[in-house]
Amino acid sequence: MNTFLTDDFLLQSEPAKRLYHDYVADLPIIDYHSHLPPSEIDENRRFSTITSIWLDGDHYKWRAMRTLGIDEHYITGKASDREKFMMWARTVPYTVRNPLYHWTHLELKNYFGVEKLLNPESADEVYRHCNERITGDEFRARSLLTKMKVEIVCTTDDPLDSLEAHRSIRSGIFPCKVLPTFRPDPSFGMEQPERWNRWVDKLGEITGNEIRSLDKFLESLESRIDFFHKNGCRLADHGLEKIHPVPDSSFHPESVFQAVRDGRDPGEEARHGLVTTILLQLSKMYHERGWVQQFHLGALRNANTRMYRKFGEAAGFDSISDVSHSHSLADFFDTLDQSNQLSKTILYNLNPADNSVMATMAGNYNDGSDRGKVQYGTAWWFLDQKDGMEDQMNILSNMGLLSCFVGMLTDSRSFLSYPRHEYFRRILCNLIGRDVENGELPYDLDWLGKIAADISYFNAKTYFPFSEEE
Amino acid sequence: MNTFLTDDFLLQSEPAKRLYHDYVADLPIIDYHSHLPPSEIDENRRFSTITSIWLDGDHYKWRAMRTLGIDEHYITGKASDREKFMMWARTVPYTVRNPLYHWTHLELKNYFGVEKLLNPESADEVYRHCNERITGDEFRARSLLTKMKVEIVCTTDDPLDSLEAHRSIRSGIFPCKVLPTFRPDPSFGMEQPERWNRWVDKLGEITGNEIRSLDKFLESLESRIDFFHKNGCRLADHGLEKIHPVPDSSFHPESVFQAVRDGRDPGEEARHGLVTTILLQLSKMYHERGWVQQFHLGALRNANTRMYRKFGEAAGFDSISDVSHSHSLADFFDTLDQSNQLSKTILYNLNPADNSVMATMAGNYNDGSDRGKVQYGTAWWFLDQKDGMEDQMNILSNMGLLSCFVGMLTDSRSFLSYPRHEYFRRILCNLIGRDVENGELPYDLDWLGKIAADISYFNAKTYFPFSEEE
Amino acid sequence: MNTFLTDDFLLQSEPAKRLYHDYVADLPIIDYHSHLPPSEIDENRRFSTITSIWLDGDHYKWRAMRTLGIDEHYITGKASDREKFMMWARTVPYTVRNPLYHWTHLELKNYFGVEKLLNPESADEVYRHCNERITGDEFRARSLLTKMKVEIVCTTDDPLDSLEAHRSIRSGIFPCKVLPTFRPDPSFGMEQPERWNRWVDKLGEITGNEIRSLDKFLESLESRIDFFHKNGCRLADHGLEKIHPVPDSSFHPESVFQAVRDGRDPGEEARHGLVTTILLQLSKMYHERGWVQQFHLGALRNANTRMYRKFGEAAGFDSISDVSHSHSLADFFDTLDQSNQLSKTILYNLNPADNSVMATMAGNYNDGSDRGKVQYGTAWWFLDQKDGMEDQMNILSNMGLLSCFVGMLTDSRSFLSYPRHEYFRRILCNLIGRDVENGELPYDLDWLGKIAADISYFNAKTYFPFSEEE
Repeated sequence: MNTFLTDDFLLQSEPAKRLYHDYVADLPIIDYHSHLPPSEIDENRRFSTITSIWLDGDHYKWRAMRTLGIDEHYITGKASDREKFMMWARTVPYTVRNPLYHWTHLELKNYFGVEKLLNPESADEVYRHCNERITGDEFRARSLLTKMKVEIVCTTDDPLDSLEAHRSIRSGIFPCKVLPTFRPDPSFGMEQPERWNRWVDKLGEITGNEIRSLDKFLESLESRIDFFHKNGCRLADHGLEKIHPVPDSSFHPESVFQAVRDGRDPGEEARHGLVTTILLQLSKMYHERGWVQQFHLGALRNANTRMYRKFGEAAGFDSISDVSHSHSLADFFDTLDQSNQLSKTILYNLNPADNSVMATMAGNYNDGSDRGKVQYGTAWWFLDQKDGMEDQMNILSNMGLLSCFVGMLTDSRSFLSYPRHEYFRRILCNLIGRDVENGELPYDLDWLGKIAADISYFNAKTYFPFSEEE
Repeated sequence: MNTFLTDDFLLQSEPAKRLYHDYVADLPIIDYHSHLPPSEIDENRRFSTITSIWLDGDHYKWRAMRTLGIDEHYITGKASDREKFMMWARTVPYTVRNPLYHWTHLELKNYFGVEKLLNPESADEVYRHCNERITGDEFRARSLLTKMKVEIVCTTDDPLDSLEAHRSIRSGIFPCKVLPTFRPDPSFGMEQPERWNRWVDKLGEITGNEIRSLDKFLESLESRIDFFHKNGCRLADHGLEKIHPVPDSSFHPESVFQAVRDGRDPGEEARHGLVTTILLQLSKMYHERGWVQQFHLGALRNANTRMYRKFGEAAGFDSISDVSHSHSLADFFDTLDQSNQLSKTILYNLNPADNSVMATMAGNYNDGSDRGKVQYGTAWWFLDQKDGMEDQMNILSNMGLLSCFVGMLTDSRSFLSYPRHEYFRRILCNLIGRDVENGELPYDLDWLGKIAADISYFNAKTYFPFSEEE
Repeated sequence: MNTFLTDDFLLQSEPAKRLYHDYVADLPIIDYHSHLPPSEIDENRRFSTITSIWLDGDHYKWRAMRTLGIDEHYITGKASDREKFMMWARTVPYTVRNPLYHWTHLELKNYFGVEKLLNPESADEVYRHCNERITGDEFRARSLLTKMKVEIVCTTDDPLDSLEAHRSIRSGIFPCKVLPTFRPDPSFGMEQPERWNRWVDKLGEITGNEIRSLDKFLESLESRIDFFHKNGCRLADHGLEKIHPVPDSSFHPESVFQAVRDGRDPGEEARHGLVTTILLQLSKMYHERGWVQQFHLGALRNANTRMYRKFGEAAGFDSISDVSHSHSLADFFDTLDQSNQLSKTILYNLNPADNSVMATMAGNYNDGSDRGKVQYGTAWWFLDQKDGMEDQMNILSNMGLLSCFVGMLTDSRSFLSYPRHEYFRRILCNLIGRDVENGELPYDLDWLGKIAADISYFNAKTYFPFSEEE
């Protein structure tokens, strides 16, 4: 019997162990999608307690605690760091079979050397041990990245961001490249017209444009894209429930734009048409600059109004949407492809029922021009767990080429999330190793080790045009 | 090699065996959702043949027989009990890999001590053996429940039901608590206006109301809720294809109600709006009384008109629907949550493509107030089989807290269905035990045994407010 | 450790090995759905190179090559057969975990005796070896079928087809029966009115009708059905994204037909209504003649306009659609069932999220008249891989009767695809054998071997009315 969290954690066959340890364990990390705050990297933040680095801002943990019936006081409320940690320690044993259980213990082990299970009995000792270490230099933001061999990390940034933190990091000496990602989601938020107009006003200020027309709006966005490009950005990202149908020629985006700009509601369909219109133009701008574009599709966000009013976004009250994607998504890509303006693209879906739609959709636009040009991205958010990752890789294997996959990312707000790359690599090697053990793949570990290493690191290195930015 | 249906049936690792035998096998059963006829418990029904207890009314078996090409004469027709049993015995070997195959042999073994496989060769002997025993006292309805340690069983009842059987059971001595469940589905059947109006008329009679308005309708329903409450009910259930969008303020439910009451068709959308309006009011009434509400979503019922005319509902001609749930369901719960009127809720889905939508939807409304307040319910109907149960538990584990799960129910019309709890517990222990064996969980069987016992029994005991009713 | 592609390939337990080798390996093949060109069987085509038999026309391989970034020149372009083969050999090692990897090596092994892995190192030798053999008589079209014990193969034919090749084959001596399948998809292509009208004109010419009305159109189709019937056809097939709702009585199909016939666009909904109207009539004609009807649902075809203009249909630019099926499909079958005109039917879906909808839909119309009358068909296209086949069989097992399943087909354009039957049979035996090993099925290999043999061969032999045609 295996015991928990050994060196061979998740590696259930001899070939799996060899693939992991001999071919991928020591590779650096290219974390091409994260939500790390660049300012904290810039200032090389020092954390005061494990609570502050681990529980503040982690809505995955909050959600588990609420489900267990723990009062908000101990989650996001005024309880002390110590009290919050104790409540989390009480929660952990009840998270068995949830990814939080694995993440928690991997993070305790890999960063703090704690091999004990976290529970109410061990909580005191673990809290003390971690807090003693956390104020040391090796737990400052930059050390946490270099310790994990993070070679490149891409943050997620508002088009209005000054990117000062990025420039400041760049101007100093830091072996890890920290690059911005252009995430223009606020451009699409017309269903909250006041907030949207405030954002557009600001965009106008920053770009020195008075934004009175859709053209001016797009011009301003393009100037931000140029600005991001100058600051090393080669990547865009979009979080949308779905990509809505490409409007036909009878649609007048300009008048819809005017309506929203004037605070009038043009109706849902018109808004959707405008969003797609803008998105098409942005995609063309990305293509012109050789960027990669990402789409995160299928979230139903802010489903709890009472809690949204209290906490705002990303507080643990989001779930999975079930809308139809295939036709409008195909239409969107096809429109770009027809004029040869389709960039390298990564598609992520949140509803696992859409896995096959996404995996095969990607294949429609691979035309031999770039290796893995349009591809099906790694398991996202609720799917970022062992079963979800296995499903994503199995479907990608069956319906596309696993070998061209650019692999894992953290998608995290926390500096302690890098063991997720290790977790992914173990699962990847376990899948391939199991096939070898079962005679479904030949016993050619050098070849399969190369495939695993490509997915763990080298594919991302080749696929993303990050090195061109110097 | 394991052989079939041993003591270690479905327990494929040492930890799984220990978890099952040492921690959960002997726990009592809280069967919080069943379709047992309370009158048969009350009168302590004695069955005449195994056919009458096993085949009459079991549309799962009927459906299998029809698929095999067996004439209706031998299924629901005029063939003798013996002939029907023989046809079922002929069918059983062809049900390999269907849950019927496991259920059949578990029931033969656990109730009748039959260890032979049922097939045409053994049919005579099995029929004779079972019929000899079935008329004995230990096969009367009440003994069948106590033999299986059923502590609580909830029936499913029409709001018009007099609950006489429940009262009669209660007035005598019977260690198993038999409680009604309020299932107001007939309130929603406006697409068959005549039937609906007859039902509403009857509701009016029973409650002494002349139901000429929506308010009166709701008042009458509330008086039935109070009546059910007095009779020990703490649980509501709803079978709906989906929960339709919450109507906006321009919707006039009263005029739609009038239209249907007058036999006019207000159109599908208006009917849906009325259903949701009524459902919201009912939910608030449940909340006021501290009830738990259940929703069974996603069935496409009565898909075969020819057979519906012959047999009516629940005759084996239903299947799985594919409609979108997420937005309107979120809207429904959010509406209740905003005024703090959302009860403890269990969500069941029939389309496995909706598993993740449901599992994550539940999480949106867990606010720390109750442990597992809104939760994703056990695999239902077509999903009530090993793969379906594993999927439900894996998704619940990954996207919520398995540890808070209230577990299994029979959902059955048959007094012989209680081995389904054993079946569930074995599968649960097998999942957890496999994770231990694979090193994905620590070897801490006391803790994991507690989790398994909670899911098998204690969570339901704590979650449902049944004990308050005395 | 197993090694790759041994005699026990995919057979991971002792019972699995015995089931496969002792009960099903040697059975003949009834390939009731293929896209083989009948003319090539008739003329007993001889192939010039392995490229021509293996790569020309195989859009699965093309798609993989494009994803890997290989230029179209080497795929469908003007590169030599040798160059194309070399590019394919370069691609193969990158297809690990894709069904192409297994198919490729099974085909090399079973037809050419090549046991080496195909890759750039072995490519020269493999190319030479295969080409030496391919011009021999045992590699002509007919030998390729008889070598694999193909007893019956059904091609897929346009209603306008003269079926000359079929008649010619029939008139000679060939132990394999080659039967046409009626595939009236061009009747439904009203969204491309010019193409549709050309096809209808031709239909009129062939049947000696001037098609000026829907009645005449249906009359002409019926005369083609009769013609196909005389030529041995007993099977229809339909490739549709979905079956649209049955129009209500207010729908006037005749006027919609007139509109399309006159080149006017009646609108999408009207077109859909007309398609369903025609489909219902065709289904009744099939029923009258005792045919089996098949529906392949859920493809999103020709998603890449640029490539469609270059290559036309079936060139590797199709993916999976996500539309709702359950209501309209139930309505369609129910309409036919009500007048007792529902034929034996096989349902195939492309979106695996629809698996359970389809599997349970089938059960709604099984009325005891025919064994497995309406059934859930084998994993199709993107799902035709190990995981997809296992999912289809597991869902069919859980929600229907696996024992009545008519099993595998090639659905292929290539004479080298017959190892897919072997692949299927191995997977089937592995599933059943694993259940035996786990104690989930009794160790009764004779019975389970009979079930496996039924699914591999005998069910198809009984289900399809092919023998009646003599």
